[in-house]
Amino acid sequence: MIILKLGGSVITRKEATEPTLEPVNLDRIAREIARAKPDKLIIIHGAGSFGHLHARKYEIGSPIHTKGELQEKRMGFALTQNSVKDLNHSVCHYLLEYGIPALAVPPSSFIITHNKRIKSANLEIIEKYLEMGLVPVLHGDVVPDTQKSIQMAVVSGDQLVNYLSLQLKPERIILGSDVDGIYDRDPKKHTHAQLLEVVKSLEDLQFLEGAQTVDVTGGMAGKLKELLELAGKGIESELINAGCEGLLERTLKGEKVRGTLISK
Amino acid sequence: MIILKLGGSVITRKEATEPTLEPVNLDRIAREIARAKPDKLIIIHGAGSFGHLHARKYEIGSPIHTKGELQEKRMGFALTQNSVKDLNHSVCHYLLEYGIPALAVPPSSFIITHNKRIKSANLEIIEKYLEMGLVPVLHGDVVPDTQKSIQMAVVSGDQLVNYLSLQLKPERIILGSDVDGIYDRDPKKHTHAQLLEVVKSLEDLQFLEGAQTVDVTGGMAGKLKELLELAGKGIESELINAGCEGLLERTLKGEKVRGTLISK
Repeated sequence: MIILKLGGSVITRKEATEPTLEPVNLDRIAREIARAKPDKLIIIHGAGSFGHLHARKYEIGSPIHTKGELQEKRMGFALTQNSVKDLNHSVCHYLLEYGIPALAVPPSSFIITHNKRIKSANLEIIEKYLEMGLVPVLHGDVVPDTQKSIQMAVVSGDQLVNYLSLQLKPERIILGSDVDGIYDRDPKKHTHAQLLEVVKSLEDLQFLEGAQTVDVTGGMAGKLKELLELAGKGIESELINAGCEGLLERTLKGEKVRGTLISK
Repeated sequence: MIILKLGGSVITRKEATEPTLEPVNLDRIAREIARAKPDKLIIIHGAGSFGHLHARKYEIGSPIHTKGELQEKRMGFALTQNSVKDLNHSVCHYLLEYGIPALAVPPSSFIITHNKRIKSANLEIIEKYLEMGLVPVLHGDVVPDTQKSIQMAVVSGDQLVNYLSLQLKPERIILGSDVDGIYDRDPKKHTHAQLLEVVKSLEDLQFLEGAQTVDVTGGMAGKLKELLELAGKGIESELINAGCEGLLERTLKGEKVRGTLISK
């Protein structure tokens, strides 16, 4: 079984001022998955501009002090969920177009967090879908939180990758974003930045200050932390550029492609 | 807490040859709910033409004999779910427009049936949403089934009403469809058919042969059976015409309106 994460940066225009799809990428990615025909597959996609704009506006996950704040955040929660569902609907649409039996499984209908970390999630239905040959599609979402002061939280695609991987023990985890992988320093600032073939700890990197991008789900450092935690438990993951034609298809087929392996 | 069922016949054009919304009704219904401001509310809507057309075409719920059949039905399952999700997205959209914090909770992400009856469903998240003041919106859907010969099933809005009512013990169950309630015989055939104020058993009705409409979820007889089962356990339900302006708002506010009470 493969868990494939599609970054919000590659399927949406992440810096747009309103939720905006990246339909060319999405169409190509769906085609590449269909061509590679992986046996058992779970897809988890980020929320990109469909999630961050709302989650940030309504500050989902920050403490609620008054009844008025709760009322506003409650509506914000519903609007955020509705917006990421919009994106998910488009993702499923493209997958179905290419004959992939994609099935939306929104975290907001079965995941509860405590202090922003997944506390309970019944994965029985996801296992059932895999057994049936269907492709469950999850996504970054908003969920209820049992921490009374916040009541609601954002669960990122990366946290989902972490949680599902620990529970379901996939053979491979592939993370497709809009960059080639992890560099030893910020490639936008340093012309001599080198792509790292393997990353084993945060200390392998000198660039971390540059990776603290404004991303409610934690930026690259947050992503890496989730993946290193997995690697520490013996579950490797592969970062590739899904914005680059053909790479996803080739890696799904088992070919070695340009990218970074997160390993112990 | 109120469980409100909106029949597929009132929010979609049920007899259309492709999935077709009934936007005027949907808009008005959302407005009426917003005006009535019920304290705690769960909405369950039927799938109407968004579900039946696909479910019938792919015969979801009928035995699977060959690998080819499984493959076809698997794709049909995904397409059906995608279509009802489409409808649900519209329902949520109208509710949000009127300031109702509607939250989609699709059965296909947390319900498993055995031989077409709900076997397991964790309702913790629905209770959590009610507590937070959100309005969970469920709908007729396709779900995995543990009966090996069928593997997948349709779960109707009516079965959901039954299951959720038994588990969550709502104060009221209101079912809005496109008819005034239950008649003693088919009103389309008999000019003297009488609207029954109360129905206590299937024997109260003489019209049942006419109610066996072609509806994969069981037609009126199926609906009544679910409701009489509830009534037998002391949980009453009210049938009203949600296609008639103002009735839903008035009944949500606690006024007595034209309709049928299903009682013990």
